[in-house]
Amino acid sequence: MHILVTNDDGVHAPGLLALATAMRPLGKVTILAPNHNWSASGHVKTMDRPLRVRETTLADGSLALTSDGAPSDCVALALLGLVDEDIDIVVSGINTHANIGHDVTYSGTVTAAMEAVIAGVKGIAVSLDSPEGFRGVLDYSTTGIVAHKVVEQVINDGLPEGVVLNVNVPYLKEAELKGYMITRQGLRVYRDELDSRLDPRGNPYYWIGGEAPTGVDEPGTDFGSLKEGYVSITPLQLDLTHYKAMDVLKKWKWK
Amino acid sequence: MHILVTNDDGVHAPGLLALATAMRPLGKVTILAPNHNWSASGHVKTMDRPLRVRETTLADGSLALTSDGAPSDCVALALLGLVDEDIDIVVSGINTHANIGHDVTYSGTVTAAMEAVIAGVKGIAVSLDSPEGFRGVLDYSTTGIVAHKVVEQVINDGLPEGVVLNVNVPYLKEAELKGYMITRQGLRVYRDELDSRLDPRGNPYYWIGGEAPTGVDEPGTDFGSLKEGYVSITPLQLDLTHYKAMDVLKKWKWK
Repeated sequence: MHILVTNDDGVHAPGLLALATAMRPLGKVTILAPNHNWSASGHVKTMDRPLRVRETTLADGSLALTSDGAPSDCVALALLGLVDEDIDIVVSGINTHANIGHDVTYSGTVTAAMEAVIAGVKGIAVSLDSPEGFRGVLDYSTTGIVAHKVVEQVINDGLPEGVVLNVNVPYLKEAELKGYMITRQGLRVYRDELDSRLDPRGNPYYWIGGEAPTGVDEPGTDFGSLKEGYVSITPLQLDLTHYKAMDVLKKWKWK
Repeated sequence: MHILVTNDDGVHAPGLLALATAMRPLGKVTILAPNHNWSASGHVKTMDRPLRVRETTLADGSLALTSDGAPSDCVALALLGLVDEDIDIVVSGINTHANIGHDVTYSGTVTAAMEAVIAGVKGIAVSLDSPEGFRGVLDYSTTGIVAHKVVEQVINDGLPEGVVLNVNVPYLKEAELKGYMITRQGLRVYRDELDSRLDPRGNPYYWIGGEAPTGVDEPGTDFGSLKEGYVSITPLQLDLTHYKAMDVLKKWKWK
């Protein structure tokens, strides 16, 4: 097994090292991750400028590659041949906060896994549902254990074609986890507000501010299962067609 | 009707002016678009820096707002209150090339429309299926007429909740169009290749190169209908759950 580890928080984020460490017993691990934070960066394909790739050393002394591209660029570079040996699985994370509900369309962590699946390689995104407003050093140990289990499961049982696996882990000790739940994407409730300010020269600038997003904690959803203390595993697809709406729109009369 | 027009090619792109012009007979038009090209930028929410908004003048002398944020940021800013009056519909485009198949996950044009729908406002993306390798001045006239018709239809008949409308228009004269087709998202075939080069100092850099993407022209898909000369209208959803795969994954045994 050759596992590519990437993330959207940048190559030196502790979550990446935790993920790489959790993957090592499962196969050969190659790391190629962005050289800076790309949170909420979405699915990027950098075509208008060339990308650089450099070697770096992680906090445990292990070697990693880092690029000035987005998470999805890192995956593309690796799969297009920058990494010599074929890659079997791309695992992205561990993100510092949950990627649930509509987050999946913004998330660099998730879009890195999407990029893999578009290229025909398995893609798994792993995120930690850290407490809102948490400022200290996050404990990634439970999420590392969970990531190991999920990827082992995927290695043994495979994944249905075209599935991107979106894994979110509660901020609990392993013994406190209620278990694993296969979930659907829930509803995020964003509470963004426009925060208008004046710079020292009196010119306006704008923050997208407001409170952290919350969600609708329906049972069976990613948000709901995290709330109950379960690991949430949501299979995502890349076909975004709203099939039911097709029937409605087909009744439109065109003049 | 208050229509927000944005795009991902930048506020001074001719496709934006064509779209704004096509929308004016339908209501009040406000333009807020990025100050540079964000193609293949994905769904962005800029939280780590403030955004600037300035007034600018388009080629026809009309006023527009422009921001240093991504297309989805422009929509967020407008809907969060930067634009005084409530916005009824967000129309994004006209993109210089088709957004079909997996493109929808990368496309700034489409994610601008997604941002609107997440905020509870109607969102429509409009793209022109320009000929591959075309270098001259694109003719947006047919696409403008189509965008007008589609948005008028939406104003009259509404849209099912949560639907993002992804409209792609063949590069034909209006009289040559075969008609309108409600389609599903097809399969893109990317032909990206790693193009490794050395800079003048002998250091490597990498282009994501290769031929332009093609697609599988199955009937009923976006790609297929464009090939046949139809306008493709694909309803997209923001729930990415792969429901069928849930049943497969639920059979996993956790140790």
